[in-house]
Amino acid sequence: MSKTEIPDPALYTDLYQLTMGQGYFRTGRHEKNAHFDFFFRKAPFGGEFVVFAGLADLLEVLERFRFTEDEIAWLRGNGFGDEFCDHLAGYTFNGSITSVREGEVVFPGEPVLTVSGSLLSCQLVETLLLNILNFQSLIATKARRLRLAAGECKLVDFGLRRGQGTGSIAASRAAAIGGFDATSNVLAGKRYDLPVSGTMAHSWIQCFDSELEAFRTYARLYPDSSILLVDTYDTIGSGLPNAITVARELEQQGHRLIGIRLDSGNPLTLSRKARTMLDDAGMDYVTIAVSDQLDEERITELRENNAPVDVFGVGTRLITGYPDGALSGVYKICDLDGHPTMKYTDEASKSSLPGIKDIERESGNDGQFARDVIRLEDPRGNRGSGRKATNGPGAGKNAGPVSGKSGKDATGRTVEHIRSIVFENGRTREHTADIAEISKFSSSRIDRLPDRIKRLNRPERYDIALDKPLLSLIEKLKP
Amino acid sequence: MSKTEIPDPALYTDLYQLTMGQGYFRTGRHEKNAHFDFFFRKAPFGGEFVVFAGLADLLEVLERFRFTEDEIAWLRGNGFGDEFCDHLAGYTFNGSITSVREGEVVFPGEPVLTVSGSLLSCQLVETLLLNILNFQSLIATKARRLRLAAGECKLVDFGLRRGQGTGSIAASRAAAIGGFDATSNVLAGKRYDLPVSGTMAHSWIQCFDSELEAFRTYARLYPDSSILLVDTYDTIGSGLPNAITVARELEQQGHRLIGIRLDSGNPLTLSRKARTMLDDAGMDYVTIAVSDQLDEERITELRENNAPVDVFGVGTRLITGYPDGALSGVYKICDLDGHPTMKYTDEASKSSLPGIKDIERESGNDGQFARDVIRLEDPRGNRGSGRKATNGPGAGKNAGPVSGKSGKDATGRTVEHIRSIVFENGRTREHTADIAEISKFSSSRIDRLPDRIKRLNRPERYDIALDKPLLSLIEKLKP
Repeated sequence: MSKTEIPDPALYTDLYQLTMGQGYFRTGRHEKNAHFDFFFRKAPFGGEFVVFAGLADLLEVLERFRFTEDEIAWLRGNGFGDEFCDHLAGYTFNGSITSVREGEVVFPGEPVLTVSGSLLSCQLVETLLLNILNFQSLIATKARRLRLAAGECKLVDFGLRRGQGTGSIAASRAAAIGGFDATSNVLAGKRYDLPVSGTMAHSWIQCFDSELEAFRTYARLYPDSSILLVDTYDTIGSGLPNAITVARELEQQGHRLIGIRLDSGNPLTLSRKARTMLDDAGMDYVTIAVSDQLDEERITELRENNAPVDVFGVGTRLITGYPDGALSGVYKICDLDGHPTMKYTDEASKSSLPGIKDIERESGNDGQFARDVIRLEDPRGNRGSGRKATNGPGAGKNAGPVSGKSGKDATGRTVEHIRSIVFENGRTREHTADIAEISKFSSSRIDRLPDRIKRLNRPERYDIALDKPLLSLIEKLKP
Repeated sequence: MSKTEIPDPALYTDLYQLTMGQGYFRTGRHEKNAHFDFFFRKAPFGGEFVVFAGLADLLEVLERFRFTEDEIAWLRGNGFGDEFCDHLAGYTFNGSITSVREGEVVFPGEPVLTVSGSLLSCQLVETLLLNILNFQSLIATKARRLRLAAGECKLVDFGLRRGQGTGSIAASRAAAIGGFDATSNVLAGKRYDLPVSGTMAHSWIQCFDSELEAFRTYARLYPDSSILLVDTYDTIGSGLPNAITVARELEQQGHRLIGIRLDSGNPLTLSRKARTMLDDAGMDYVTIAVSDQLDEERITELRENNAPVDVFGVGTRLITGYPDGALSGVYKICDLDGHPTMKYTDEASKSSLPGIKDIERESGNDGQFARDVIRLEDPRGNRGSGRKATNGPGAGKNAGPVSGKSGKDATGRTVEHIRSIVFENGRTREHTADIAEISKFSSSRIDRLPDRIKRLNRPERYDIALDKPLLSLIEKLKP
């Protein structure tokens, strides 16, 4: 079974990729050796970092990237010529991909991922790649911000009902990478092996003659896993007293109520009141879950006011990446047949970096990330036909981008190449798709980001340098 | 082939639906006859209306709603009991659905759609229904607002690369319902039979030794369908002069350049300058397309300033429903086994309407919508077990909700029942899935909405009344 919901990857694209593809094909350009960089123009949510996500899904889709007969027929019927359609009928994606690891913390302007291959291959996968990586990185970044706000509290994704259609499945995956503990989304849980959790809805309460009977019945059915929703009628007047009654009954039967959930009203006031009522009843073990339009700002405010909340259920504002809604990742050609190229336009933020590059990440003695250096892989910036080999580890002066390989530089800083080859010869290579592992890696990277950079509001800029050969190349190519 | 990207509809849900479902099953409640209303709590984007969309997709999914063996196995392995799992293994969705037509213009608080069936059926489809209808209605509403802003100009959806994962496919469908002319999304175009269109990317330009050569080659390949992207290097200095040169060459060969596209810089200044340059060259037939972070506000501003733009390409802000990102549609039980029920909580906006209801829409002599009346279907609000039959046309005093059936009331207004049965006995009934038809219907409904209601900013409230029996029932049920 495929992991993603993209059954037809080849047509999951913008029409112009195919129109241009046919143009390359008809002018004999389609086999030229090209390199395209993927990078984020800016970080979302007023922050400074992006959590890179979606890579394993992208690679899974690229492995099975084919044009089906049905798709070829559609193309023939929609203005594409026979020769090009015949070519596509036998086409498989055969480029290679160099990338930072999924879950890595990255910064605007860095070539996070590079696709190398025939010009046609590079062009055909652009939209697919942008769609997957932009969205999952948006949600993973949002989730990480929520995790930074929530500290050690439990975070549960409740977003499915307000998510953007089937994008919600990938969003639940990305939320886990960003540090969420569980999701209510069963399909995402099953597919990506994520912890699944949930409580009860107001409809459960309304299906019984009384709230007390609804609680009691639920507790009898699920004596060791009940979280009771207390706001259907009157949170303080009936919900909590009824929950305490049922918790007492559970105690007498040798069980324990897990928690109560607040889904409306003022969460600060209500959680305090609930905590007091529960503690007064000797039930300090009953946890308090809060949901309803939460985001990192509200969670920060609740925690700064010492709201006694144990679990935050976050829906809409996680799953839609509110308020940004989209990330600014773009995909730009940087080299064609050994000729570095760049887009240099009126708007500086819409320009791109030329040539084949690597990212070195420097850390101080405290292990904290100090700066990233974007280096041109070959200092001469002019390597002619030997290009392809320099992508491999061990090739070229800079020894290629080998992830995790690190050493000390002259100033005592540790230097790490954070990109490596993750896809070649039609296959994914040395790469994990295990979400718990990706999430753990991501968390370890965030831990090494200085507080002044990772804070949620008005962070400082992370230092990104371009090496001299790259700067010279830019000067040379400027119009 | 299924129309949507939801291969496993039964687990495309929140865990608590299944937990509650098992609870209903174990307490013998699962076969009770229930009714759940779907309604929007508020309209998005500061407007007053919602364009209801997603219905045909929802019905298509419900027709094939089953638990697969693999899914049942997962449930067994995740704490669900054998008896309930055996029940689910043979389960199909057998409820009925009464709804307004897809594309209808609706307002906050109205019961747009009602699911009637066993309590278990109603509960199992909640999340799926909310996910599909909330998102597509969000995007259709956004698209309609863009259409209102753009007047007769062409609107093209460019959103796929910034969309929320595979949600983008449904979004392109919804955009067409809201009045978009075409999409760049090939898969959505193929699946939903939408016009597909596109131009060229900057990479095309960068793959040639010069911009002029890039334009010339493209025009040679596509002599009757070229739209040239003129902002790769210098819009006024090189892009436009080169485009004019190529347009002249096309003229000499008996062809015509279709248009030019601006994707950066100030669209007002640049479109005016471009128009002048093209007109001075005698090329008043060359159209001007503009893209780059457009929304209804920017389009309104451009048109108020008479910007000579013919085509607007809208990406991110359409496809993500920016800035709201989600719609507030909820699904609340309104009747269980003949007993009307309502949620009445501390927050008024989170309350629901009890009982089985119909919507009557009244229009004035000018054909404009005047107000909607939400009526309790049986004025006694207490019909016991005969409930189910009253959903059918011809049953009960109000003759059931038959869409399109209309008559004059005592004041001379035309009255229309805008809901009808769209799904029963496991099958979709009398319902179109043709997007062009849905879009045309939607457009005809918007035309009948008074300007003061449909304006984009600070609209007036649309008049919605509750009939007396409904008001009495609410009074009776209030705690």
